[in-house]
Amino acid sequence: MSDLTRTGSTAFYTDQYELTMVQAALESGAADRRSLFEVFGRSLPIGRRYGVVAGTGRILEMLRDFRFGDEELSFLSREQIVDSRTIDWLADYSFSGSIRGYAEGEIYFPGSPLMTIESTFAEGVILETLILSAMNYDSAVASAASRMAQAAGDRPCAEMGGRRTNEHAAVAAARAAVIGGFASTSNLAAGLRYGLRTIGTSAHSFTLLHDSEQEAFAAQLRSLGTDTTLLLDTYDVEEALATAIRLAGENLGGVRIDSGDLVEQASEVRAGLDRLGAHDTNITVTSDLDEYAIAALAASPVDSYGVGTRVVTGSGAPAAGLVYKLVARADESGAWTSVAKNSTGKPSRGGHKDALRLIDGAIAVEEAVGIPTLPGDLGDGRSLTVDLVVDGEIDESYIGADGVTKACARHDESLAELPRSARRMQDGEPAIPTVFYPK
Amino acid sequence: MSDLTRTGSTAFYTDQYELTMVQAALESGAADRRSLFEVFGRSLPIGRRYGVVAGTGRILEMLRDFRFGDEELSFLSREQIVDSRTIDWLADYSFSGSIRGYAEGEIYFPGSPLMTIESTFAEGVILETLILSAMNYDSAVASAASRMAQAAGDRPCAEMGGRRTNEHAAVAAARAAVIGGFASTSNLAAGLRYGLRTIGTSAHSFTLLHDSEQEAFAAQLRSLGTDTTLLLDTYDVEEALATAIRLAGENLGGVRIDSGDLVEQASEVRAGLDRLGAHDTNITVTSDLDEYAIAALAASPVDSYGVGTRVVTGSGAPAAGLVYKLVARADESGAWTSVAKNSTGKPSRGGHKDALRLIDGAIAVEEAVGIPTLPGDLGDGRSLTVDLVVDGEIDESYIGADGVTKACARHDESLAELPRSARRMQDGEPAIPTVFYPK
Repeated sequence: MSDLTRTGSTAFYTDQYELTMVQAALESGAADRRSLFEVFGRSLPIGRRYGVVAGTGRILEMLRDFRFGDEELSFLSREQIVDSRTIDWLADYSFSGSIRGYAEGEIYFPGSPLMTIESTFAEGVILETLILSAMNYDSAVASAASRMAQAAGDRPCAEMGGRRTNEHAAVAAARAAVIGGFASTSNLAAGLRYGLRTIGTSAHSFTLLHDSEQEAFAAQLRSLGTDTTLLLDTYDVEEALATAIRLAGENLGGVRIDSGDLVEQASEVRAGLDRLGAHDTNITVTSDLDEYAIAALAASPVDSYGVGTRVVTGSGAPAAGLVYKLVARADESGAWTSVAKNSTGKPSRGGHKDALRLIDGAIAVEEAVGIPTLPGDLGDGRSLTVDLVVDGEIDESYIGADGVTKACARHDESLAELPRSARRMQDGEPAIPTVFYPK
Repeated sequence: MSDLTRTGSTAFYTDQYELTMVQAALESGAADRRSLFEVFGRSLPIGRRYGVVAGTGRILEMLRDFRFGDEELSFLSREQIVDSRTIDWLADYSFSGSIRGYAEGEIYFPGSPLMTIESTFAEGVILETLILSAMNYDSAVASAASRMAQAAGDRPCAEMGGRRTNEHAAVAAARAAVIGGFASTSNLAAGLRYGLRTIGTSAHSFTLLHDSEQEAFAAQLRSLGTDTTLLLDTYDVEEALATAIRLAGENLGGVRIDSGDLVEQASEVRAGLDRLGAHDTNITVTSDLDEYAIAALAASPVDSYGVGTRVVTGSGAPAAGLVYKLVARADESGAWTSVAKNSTGKPSRGGHKDALRLIDGAIAVEEAVGIPTLPGDLGDGRSLTVDLVVDGEIDESYIGADGVTKACARHDESLAELPRSARRMQDGEPAIPTVFYPK
């Protein structure tokens, strides 16, 4: 797995136009203009009350390896994608600018200035694709996971969707799901890389492999111990339950149901387990769950949820819709000019920004965004941005397992201060309004 | 990019339960039973007429590197995920079985036996997650791309969605989109790895960076040549168009529109270009396109489409819904038993299968699946499965750039034999029925 931890180069996870823009900006002389890029979302996915920032730690990790090596440079030259002057510039590339942003795990709303990249134009523009890829996917998953974890309440959710998304995306999805409040993942690479708790016992194929369900259960119990979770729905759930407790005794760790009417089955299985004295045996359900299905099971005797497809595909919103825009540039004297596209239907707000979550009695009431600064009389608030990279120095504390731990804590705290309406499953407006100052 | 071509190991893109099942099967003695796993989809995404198989070449590439190295084995040991006997078994792992399947690029329908993996149980079960990740994501993208390319007719589509999906998924998405009929991609890693044609010129940020649009256009033209594509909608499209032709002359390669009412704008821009004598200047549109938006532009004077979010997220179906099931196992004497889960709502058909696309007058009429064989009197048909791995020997011709070329050809041919109803955009039934024999 060493390649997963340190790839040779991340610089080619990039759209070609980032490099041709560098070439043309070197030509015009504007490549070195100080520039401020901003990542934000124009809106949340339809009906969502809040979004969750994720991907930040992975971006910082990949930024360390954002270098153009011989293989990349030869390709660019051979394919005549950019000229030799640009190739020389890329060969020397190392990001020397600064990045600030919402901490990973933070809640966000439409227009929240999630990340700003300040550097020369050329240094900043070529990070666009990589930063957006990581933030759009990871935030989509973390936002979906957060809603599911909220719906699950005290019951743990496990991420099991790796098989329903690209194999590398699966690792990022596991990490993002945990940041959004999931307890564990089935993905081994995510366990290795990010220290996430991994889980998993057996599938239907294991039961089908054996001459009888009893043989399969007995083998699993001998090999994995009584604490294992037995899968009940390969043949007949009621029979499987009886077999399971007969073999394991009343201390069986858990049972899993993966099909059928889960509300009905959970009650029947709980009754069956209790009748056999297995009062502490947990019930896990895992069939096509999303936040709505989880909410519908709230009154059922379920102990934990395994979520697959819907969490790794953002539960209907597979990309967070974040964009990376030039919002200001400086002239040679250092004076900044705010810039924004004058486009119909795609609002952008140019300029430097400052963001504060206004708090009234421990409850968030407004996302206040100052362009460029906020008035002093807004009341209590929490500053939302932190330094991620300062003059090319990456804050390593956001990377790896420690970064995930920090992000989980940030998410918990931010979620706790949201109004109750944020937890509603039905479609609605963002939980708090975003207000831009001056109004 | 060397890490992209040859990762150290792909074995941890795996769910934990694959390995605990190996452990329990070693315990029961069933680990070495000959087993047949099958990949199939129970249904197509709602309303779709057909699906496109993709990911096969990537699976074979990753299978070469499916080895458990020191880092993986130490993790499994340290975290007590499996016992030492299983760790020894994993340390020696090398797939020695056989894989057959629909060739990459092939069209598929509900129940098509897309891939079969025949090996010992233990050797085959641990490939489940990786195979499904690649096939579910890549097939989702290729299936969406195919519909979009059909809607676009002779006009080329370019994949530009890397920023809307995980950065590694972006490379797979570019590849899958080209297999589905796209002409090119903005993704540089996909160009390097798979020999795809890459494209891209400039974004709004490039225009905003300069003191005027004229300065930006002039720099781009000087640097990238008259054949470049200028982006018109940063400020005012009409003014931008006049500036573009004034600077570039009537031989300007192309213009791009990225916002607004594309139908209206395309006509206005075409009229403007023609008025200025730029009859050969191409118009590319790139704003939130999907198959429906492309179809709606069929009568507009557009020359090419750039598609982002919707193609890399499968246009509403971000995972193809394929599953990997044990369908048969042999006992110690070598006699096979068909197996299938007896579950409500999730139909599986056990047993070996043979698949034929029945053709009547050059048009496909039925997906015929024999369990285990087909009757001899079904009429003309095309056999659908090819050898991908034989006794551990991987057919390398499906890997890399050559594999993509083959897959594109396969897709074109298979699409050409579908009935016209397959090209309909509105929701409907699969273009041909899947029939299982004996009936």
